[in-house]
Amino acid sequence: MSDTEKKYAFGMIGLGTMGRNLLLNMGDHGFAGAGFDKDASKGALLEQEDKNKNLKGFSEVEPFIASLSTPRAIMMLVPAGKIVDDVIAELLPYLDKGDILIDGGNSHFTDTNRRVEELESQGFHFFGMGVSGGADGARRGPSIMPGGDKAAYNVMKPILEAIAAKAEDGEPCVTYIGPGAAGHFVKMVHNGIEYGLMQLIAESYEIMKKGLKMDNDAIQKVFAKWNDGRLQCFLLDITKDIFLFKAPGTDHLLIDDIKDEARAKGTGKWTSQVAMDLQAPIPTVDTAVAMRDLSKYKQLRVQASELYSDVPVINVDDKEQFLAELEQAFYFTMIISYAQGMHLLTNASAEYKYDLKLAEIAKIWRAGCIIRSKFLYDIYNAYTKDSGLAHLLLDGGVQKLVNEVVPGTRSVLSKTIAAGIAAPAFTASLSYFDAFRSARMPSNLTQAQRDFFGAHTYELIGKEGVFHTEWMAKTNN
Amino acid sequence: MSDTEKKYAFGMIGLGTMGRNLLLNMGDHGFAGAGFDKDASKGALLEQEDKNKNLKGFSEVEPFIASLSTPRAIMMLVPAGKIVDDVIAELLPYLDKGDILIDGGNSHFTDTNRRVEELESQGFHFFGMGVSGGADGARRGPSIMPGGDKAAYNVMKPILEAIAAKAEDGEPCVTYIGPGAAGHFVKMVHNGIEYGLMQLIAESYEIMKKGLKMDNDAIQKVFAKWNDGRLQCFLLDITKDIFLFKAPGTDHLLIDDIKDEARAKGTGKWTSQVAMDLQAPIPTVDTAVAMRDLSKYKQLRVQASELYSDVPVINVDDKEQFLAELEQAFYFTMIISYAQGMHLLTNASAEYKYDLKLAEIAKIWRAGCIIRSKFLYDIYNAYTKDSGLAHLLLDGGVQKLVNEVVPGTRSVLSKTIAAGIAAPAFTASLSYFDAFRSARMPSNLTQAQRDFFGAHTYELIGKEGVFHTEWMAKTNN
Repeated sequence: MSDTEKKYAFGMIGLGTMGRNLLLNMGDHGFAGAGFDKDASKGALLEQEDKNKNLKGFSEVEPFIASLSTPRAIMMLVPAGKIVDDVIAELLPYLDKGDILIDGGNSHFTDTNRRVEELESQGFHFFGMGVSGGADGARRGPSIMPGGDKAAYNVMKPILEAIAAKAEDGEPCVTYIGPGAAGHFVKMVHNGIEYGLMQLIAESYEIMKKGLKMDNDAIQKVFAKWNDGRLQCFLLDITKDIFLFKAPGTDHLLIDDIKDEARAKGTGKWTSQVAMDLQAPIPTVDTAVAMRDLSKYKQLRVQASELYSDVPVINVDDKEQFLAELEQAFYFTMIISYAQGMHLLTNASAEYKYDLKLAEIAKIWRAGCIIRSKFLYDIYNAYTKDSGLAHLLLDGGVQKLVNEVVPGTRSVLSKTIAAGIAAPAFTASLSYFDAFRSARMPSNLTQAQRDFFGAHTYELIGKEGVFHTEWMAKTNN
Repeated sequence: MSDTEKKYAFGMIGLGTMGRNLLLNMGDHGFAGAGFDKDASKGALLEQEDKNKNLKGFSEVEPFIASLSTPRAIMMLVPAGKIVDDVIAELLPYLDKGDILIDGGNSHFTDTNRRVEELESQGFHFFGMGVSGGADGARRGPSIMPGGDKAAYNVMKPILEAIAAKAEDGEPCVTYIGPGAAGHFVKMVHNGIEYGLMQLIAESYEIMKKGLKMDNDAIQKVFAKWNDGRLQCFLLDITKDIFLFKAPGTDHLLIDDIKDEARAKGTGKWTSQVAMDLQAPIPTVDTAVAMRDLSKYKQLRVQASELYSDVPVINVDDKEQFLAELEQAFYFTMIISYAQGMHLLTNASAEYKYDLKLAEIAKIWRAGCIIRSKFLYDIYNAYTKDSGLAHLLLDGGVQKLVNEVVPGTRSVLSKTIAAGIAAPAFTASLSYFDAFRSARMPSNLTQAQRDFFGAHTYELIGKEGVFHTEWMAKTNN
């Protein structure tokens, strides 16, 4: 069997679109790769699409493993959850110590922690590797977030750097993220930011459609214009294209036929839940998660629309001026979304000892991934200038960008709220900002209440210790 | 030992303020109760405060257990977490089958689920029992939310009904909530609503203090006035008192000296996290959790206040009119807070098979607990009229209340946002409402985007099945 005698540099388990495309990407860069899928037709499809003849498909585990050069580097691209554990269990008998197993899916980082511990204790390396960019990114160059053993990373580094997306400055969009589950954690937060940006785009659509009564064509032009300027990002780029796509065989746009019930695979929810555990607030993401959930209650919404039926219209004297302010509001909330995500990463890095390099993370998000955007260059600059920056909003460059767009943001959102258009992620972002810039929040009252009814104590300004008051005396006047 | 021969009807483990007060409450109603605390001085204090001579303190487990009539009903009031398991392990050797163990603390409902399973399988009964009302409520009558075996509940029922708070109609604020962890789940959601209401009061304070430049005396009068009307609730009641309380030995109010960094024990966070798992959005609570967390970043906030320093002032022509609208906004968001909590309970009841009676839950929240309010009578009426009400906002009575205050809410919040005052829970509540009353949300765009970059498919209006489009073709015009 001359084919299996050939030693392939990389193995891929699961030859769905993502796995197949990543292997084809490797083949394009001259690497020899082996793919495994129980469905033999998937391996055949791989070989058929492989113009460089660098790739080989397998449907049996043993020859697949035997075909790989050692130490083996094997990536799994299978659905998160129990299946990952099942695949690991099936592979283990065939592996040698020092081999590297990579989970390229969106596993919860706590599962990855467990797998790292179990496999490292048996002499294997386990990587949680975030891969962003969808099917097209996998084929042409994704952003890659690998976490695990540093020495093992160096084995894979040439392949990963070759297949990764390249930013405008030619830098590959992959870097060693950190130990343990750091890679999956960072990918999860990436997805959380993605949820936030998608919700902001949806709300912009809502404001233009319901508030300004604009048609799809006019909305498309706004998104296209935004994407030509400082708002440039992958998600606006695809949005402007979505607003060109007709329902097959009709004269109207497909977008109008799609049900308004959003689905989710959980990564946004996980981000919000973990942020609450880490006490690092990310209300823009929380809101995006809440709105996806709310969208599912279609029947209740239809009933409610009849009971609470006042029609929202935004009274606008100057529509162009309003749209200019909406662009400012989008820029503002985009900045807030990233700032919340980076702040969460700062907290996670300290709590889990990931030693994250935020400049590096911003750097590898600049191309290939779903949240790539022009603004990521500003984030990259901010953390390059000060690797210990405690919060993105404290960077001088970002401060200038923000201060310029705050007035327009306030203007457009106060009108939107007055009109009765739901813009929850927009307003959550602005409220976060206004609370964050409060040297004094009203939380002293919360503490007084907690001490009143629960004797939970409070702290005093300029005085050490915790204190309790017998408030029930009502007044000590 | 004549004392231990006496059979006490109820046992209490942990004689801190809550445990002691609950026992004293039982004693007042003629029940004989035994208290256990390793610290013998706590048992002594119990007996000293017991004017009726119905109670006895113990500092050894064996005689404490022996003093109880069977089947024994023993409540633990100890900190949530491992300590509960430790206490259970210490007690078990002394118990008989059929005895009832009650966890009266704020345990996470998943821990309670586990304990119910473990103990029921060994022939014991385990109750997760929410107790709300703080130290004063425990002494004079709390709201009690017991979940567990129904027959075991009936054993305790006379005592619980005697010690519970009584609503205006004389009804005791206790009812059998449901099986398993239903009691702790409902108490957790109670606390989530509490987080929301506290945050709304804090934001009202912020708006009056920073936006209207009102002094403490004027703010106190507003809270007192609110509490005399439809907003009447325990939390406003204590708030108006807090604004009368001077810092000892000074001429200024204590509230001004308290640090603006809020603490939390986790029940609000749990509520938000579980709501995300159940896909039942409660953004008002999420926001309250986020703001407690944000308050802890005092140093960052001080820095940010210097970089983003425009001073918020609300331009108000007619201050009385603005305050009247603020009262409307508070009423509106109070309704939304409860509505979100009840909707979460509806979802949890279906998912966990709790068979919750929402009318009964509203009924027992009307007195004794931290979220008691005049509006709970409206909630009680709504679910009494229609036990299957899918969402509180769909009740005709609530609809009238809401529609009356929506215009004022919009007016006051649009001004607040424009001025730069953070009112995140207010705006989150309004956005939730505006999204909820949308027969059509913009989530069709979210689904199109997900299908574009991740081939996650979408559904079509009026057509069965899921669909995928090759959007990369950019346009099919």
